[in-house]
Amino acid sequence: MIFRLAVETHQRDELIDITCQVQNVVTDAAAHEGICTVYVPHTTAAVTIQENDDPNVAVDIIDGLDRLIPVKGVLPYKHIEENAPAHLKVALVGTSETLFVEEGKLQLGRWQSIFLCEFDGPRQREVLVKLSA
Amino acid sequence: MIFRLAVETHQRDELIDITCQVQNVVTDAAAHEGICTVYVPHTTAAVTIQENDDPNVAVDIIDGLDRLIPVKGVLPYKHIEENAPAHLKVALVGTSETLFVEEGKLQLGRWQSIFLCEFDGPRQREVLVKLSA
Amino acid sequence: MIFRLAVETHQRDELIDITCQVQNVVTDAAAHEGICTVYVPHTTAAVTIQENDDPNVAVDIIDGLDRLIPVKGVLPYKHIEENAPAHLKVALVGTSETLFVEEGKLQLGRWQSIFLCEFDGPRQREVLVKLSA
Repeated sequence: MIFRLAVETHQRDELIDITCQVQNVVTDAAAHEGICTVYVPHTTAAVTIQENDDPNVAVDIIDGLDRLIPVKGVLPYKHIEENAPAHLKVALVGTSETLFVEEGKLQLGRWQSIFLCEFDGPRQREVLVKLSA
Repeated sequence: MIFRLAVETHQRDELIDITCQVQNVVTDAAAHEGICTVYVPHTTAAVTIQENDDPNVAVDIIDGLDRLIPVKGVLPYKHIEENAPAHLKVALVGTSETLFVEEGKLQLGRWQSIFLCEFDGPRQREVLVKLSA
Repeated sequence: MIFRLAVETHQRDELIDITCQVQNVVTDAAAHEGICTVYVPHTTAAVTIQENDDPNVAVDIIDGLDRLIPVKGVLPYKHIEENAPAHLKVALVGTSETLFVEEGKLQLGRWQSIFLCEFDGPRQREVLVKLSA
């Protein structure tokens, strides 16, 4: 069974903490132990696991990715929709994360949170979650 | 059981859509629901999930990675085989992808395809696929 | 069940081959076939699969990531702990790897090894390993 979460983004580039929503899937399914896979079915949004204690970490990641992959490339991008940088960011950050569940809880490290990475917003995004043994 | 796909590449850097081959594994195994893991057993080739509607997305990804990780580094690379940039690209893009299967179909987003990423071709490459519950 | 490996790092940036430790988990658990997931519960350390035949590949990856994401950014980083580049490197390299097991052995490619990537050491790190069918 696949659980589908709706996430609304508000900026072109944005990291949104979805840890609570993913933990809610685990809790509602009464999953005690296993693997939880988070999958983003988009080509201009990704998922990462990062610190959320200092919200500036997310800001630095967004700014750092923008410096690496500027909106206007040194050579022009060929993709007609003008969101080529978003596609490249997704290729680097990735569209899925695998997490462990134990005693009904996501086994995240002390500083880890799960973030949807919006690179071409604002949009309505979907996040798929699947639990396996 | 591990399914092994053969993929022939034709250029130094190339993104090759392998979605049909992976879906064929799912179909032939009569997998109805579960997880499909795609694994690339190489250190200069990777796998990513990206748009294939406009083939220029793949071109922009190849060109963008080349700008980030030039063949001739600012400082010389130390690896003797002269394919150090390919290794670094693989470290960033990654060697596996996790996908969901429902009703016998890979649950890709509307614009998503699975691509083998060749960074040191042309070569004969292998892609491993495993289905789990 | 989650197996926990302790890894001690000795430099700020370092790639440490943990293949033997992960294979030992598979062997000790008498896992014959399935999936082995390696998970790093940190936000300034990651995991990658790379070549270890020539140790200079690891050096080139560390140096290449440092060129991409310099300690002193073009614009200053906002995160107060001064390890913002480590967080960004983790967002790119990722915190988990999925591997296949067959006949009791990790199905790595000929040149592949599993590396813990330290980006903010030296530290005591933990690596989680889970086996599934």
